[in-house]
Amino acid sequence: MVVGRNIKNVVELVNKMKMNGVKFSGIFCGVKKNGKKDLAIAVFDEPVMVAGVFTKNLVQAPSVKITKKRIIKNDIKALIVVSGNACVCVKDDEKDAKKVTEELAKKLKVKSDSIAHAATGVIGVKLPIEKVIDGIPKALENLKDDFVDFAKAITTTDAFEKISEKTITIKNKKVNILGIAKGAGMIAPNLATMLVFIFTDAKIKKIAMKRALKECVEDSFNSISVDGDMSTNDMVLIFSTGKANNDEITESDHYEEFKKGLFDVCISLAKQIVKDGEGATKVITIKVDGAKTKKDAEKIARTIATSQLVKTAFFGEDPNWGRIMAAIGRSNVKIEPKKIKIFIQDKKVVENGVESSDFNEEYLKKLLKSSEVCINVELHMGKAKKLFYTSDLTLDYVKINSSYRT
Amino acid sequence: MVVGRNIKNVVELVNKMKMNGVKFSGIFCGVKKNGKKDLAIAVFDEPVMVAGVFTKNLVQAPSVKITKKRIIKNDIKALIVVSGNACVCVKDDEKDAKKVTEELAKKLKVKSDSIAHAATGVIGVKLPIEKVIDGIPKALENLKDDFVDFAKAITTTDAFEKISEKTITIKNKKVNILGIAKGAGMIAPNLATMLVFIFTDAKIKKIAMKRALKECVEDSFNSISVDGDMSTNDMVLIFSTGKANNDEITESDHYEEFKKGLFDVCISLAKQIVKDGEGATKVITIKVDGAKTKKDAEKIARTIATSQLVKTAFFGEDPNWGRIMAAIGRSNVKIEPKKIKIFIQDKKVVENGVESSDFNEEYLKKLLKSSEVCINVELHMGKAKKLFYTSDLTLDYVKINSSYRT
Repeated sequence: MVVGRNIKNVVELVNKMKMNGVKFSGIFCGVKKNGKKDLAIAVFDEPVMVAGVFTKNLVQAPSVKITKKRIIKNDIKALIVVSGNACVCVKDDEKDAKKVTEELAKKLKVKSDSIAHAATGVIGVKLPIEKVIDGIPKALENLKDDFVDFAKAITTTDAFEKISEKTITIKNKKVNILGIAKGAGMIAPNLATMLVFIFTDAKIKKIAMKRALKECVEDSFNSISVDGDMSTNDMVLIFSTGKANNDEITESDHYEEFKKGLFDVCISLAKQIVKDGEGATKVITIKVDGAKTKKDAEKIARTIATSQLVKTAFFGEDPNWGRIMAAIGRSNVKIEPKKIKIFIQDKKVVENGVESSDFNEEYLKKLLKSSEVCINVELHMGKAKKLFYTSDLTLDYVKINSSYRT
Repeated sequence: MVVGRNIKNVVELVNKMKMNGVKFSGIFCGVKKNGKKDLAIAVFDEPVMVAGVFTKNLVQAPSVKITKKRIIKNDIKALIVVSGNACVCVKDDEKDAKKVTEELAKKLKVKSDSIAHAATGVIGVKLPIEKVIDGIPKALENLKDDFVDFAKAITTTDAFEKISEKTITIKNKKVNILGIAKGAGMIAPNLATMLVFIFTDAKIKKIAMKRALKECVEDSFNSISVDGDMSTNDMVLIFSTGKANNDEITESDHYEEFKKGLFDVCISLAKQIVKDGEGATKVITIKVDGAKTKKDAEKIARTIATSQLVKTAFFGEDPNWGRIMAAIGRSNVKIEPKKIKIFIQDKKVVENGVESSDFNEEYLKKLLKSSEVCINVELHMGKAKKLFYTSDLTLDYVKINSSYRT
């Protein structure tokens, strides 16, 4: 699994994996002002089963509402993604979003209820709907096995497209899982979004697929933070064609094997998103160990991960453990400060709640020049643990996010 | 009430108000490396009644624990504040903090239980206790009515000292309230702290004073955010000498008059702290109106106030209402997006959850050049409201907080 793969990697990957029964397309139709691809379509040979996880933001884009409803039935025939405009908080946003799916449905000669839809980009600006409608036939002409154009077309401020794949074997049958994501914090020049589309040829019971997705999202996409903001358009979807013809995966059969493969894909994409955090120079892995409950561990990890002071300290390559202690203390979890150990880059910096005698500031400053930072917190209150990923808070983050929206 | 008063203001103020029965001192004893004042003492002619509000961080400095306990009895004789070292998360921190109060008690010939104590500065570094001990006699020699040295000596990274005063009249008797604070975000070069000391000559029942303080803190110091971090050493104390000889204030008599005066002092100090937020260029006032409950209003106001994206947008003078809408949506409060109105600098930018037809981006950008920004959110869900204050997130914030701790 490569984090932050470059184009060369992607091309090699394309030569390796084909997702049987799915064709992809990505073109420029005119939503973005900079001429970059902004319309992505995936079409399935036969209706597929879909499970999804959606933003909890109460201000929700019509694309979220539409797709949430439509995937209940198992007859999704295509996915259409518009990037550059979130189509939310603007007059007629619901009408426009529906119209996009109706136009694709018409061309594919299917019911509009069988089209899933996602959108990402600027909030509160009217979607240039005619441009999208005109783009649909062009996108359909360009459908192919190769998913690189699709991956490019769903990005907005991303510095690179995000792809991850995994092949698992279930009783000698190969099962493919392909993940494509966009997201880079919550984001310049306006709110942007995390969109994740996972395609698999696994034969799997819907209830098992839903559960696996939910569990994997919890420990991957719900365990990252770039700036703590949550978009109106976030969406993670998994589409299964069933074409691998494997022994059917259920909650009791082959579940863990499938979930492990799915998790590998999810965690790779999640880390790619953190790596692409706006202006980020470092990926920070936070491991909290020895909590009473997983929820406690998660609360502490999230408080550290979203502390502006912790994030700026690591940008400055400063092993400032006092800020980590203070974040732990204010996370609303019952802890005993005197039991706490903290490690930075595997070096002990805090023991029994005070500075460790091993603490060597100059040496740690050198270790913190790495683009990968790890913070381990041991609470000694129980056995629960949590891994969480964040990025540093940099001058470029402020520059990007304070600049006038385009 | 002047926000961010300069030295000249302070001197004028000193000429105006004397707090009968209290003497102040502020000197340099050697805790700070830069030679600035770092030891502040206030001594009372007679034992005073004290109420306090303390940090909820579970990692608490010994000064917090000690003072919390001692103010239960009504015989506080003096307050000693060390700045430059928080005396927490370090070996023997409790012993050292107690020792500081014991030394002052010895010189004043009182019990050490009658000394209140606060500390602010770097975490996890041993307090140079001998320097503090040597400084105490020097500080006592310098006691005077003038509180400017005291105000200077409690600061750390503050750009200016924070003072506010108010005189109220209770049945023809003048009652003075003097507030002195330090704080500038949670802060470079390390964690720093909000310390607030309020002195009054009011004759007041303790239960009334406690309640008034709690209520005022809720709507002032608990309604500001610079970066959402909470210190291990935060403390707000009110000391009453009773020397005004007014009709005693109780929960049923003169309570509102006193509370109003106290609130004026608190809100002025709170705004001064926001104004002095690290690298801040703007004070942002957020008013949430029409919530079902005050708690709902507070949650939404706090989510907006701590959103990195909102704070960077205003640094960039960008009237980016989409980020405000998204913050409202993710604040875990049930709202109806289509009922929402948002005003920036009193201009309507959102109506019925979408961009208002009055929205004039170029004009608003000009209005946002002001150092005072106001955001009004109308939810139309009920009648509760909340005022909240924050600062913008700037390049200087990141520069200050990522620079190596000194």
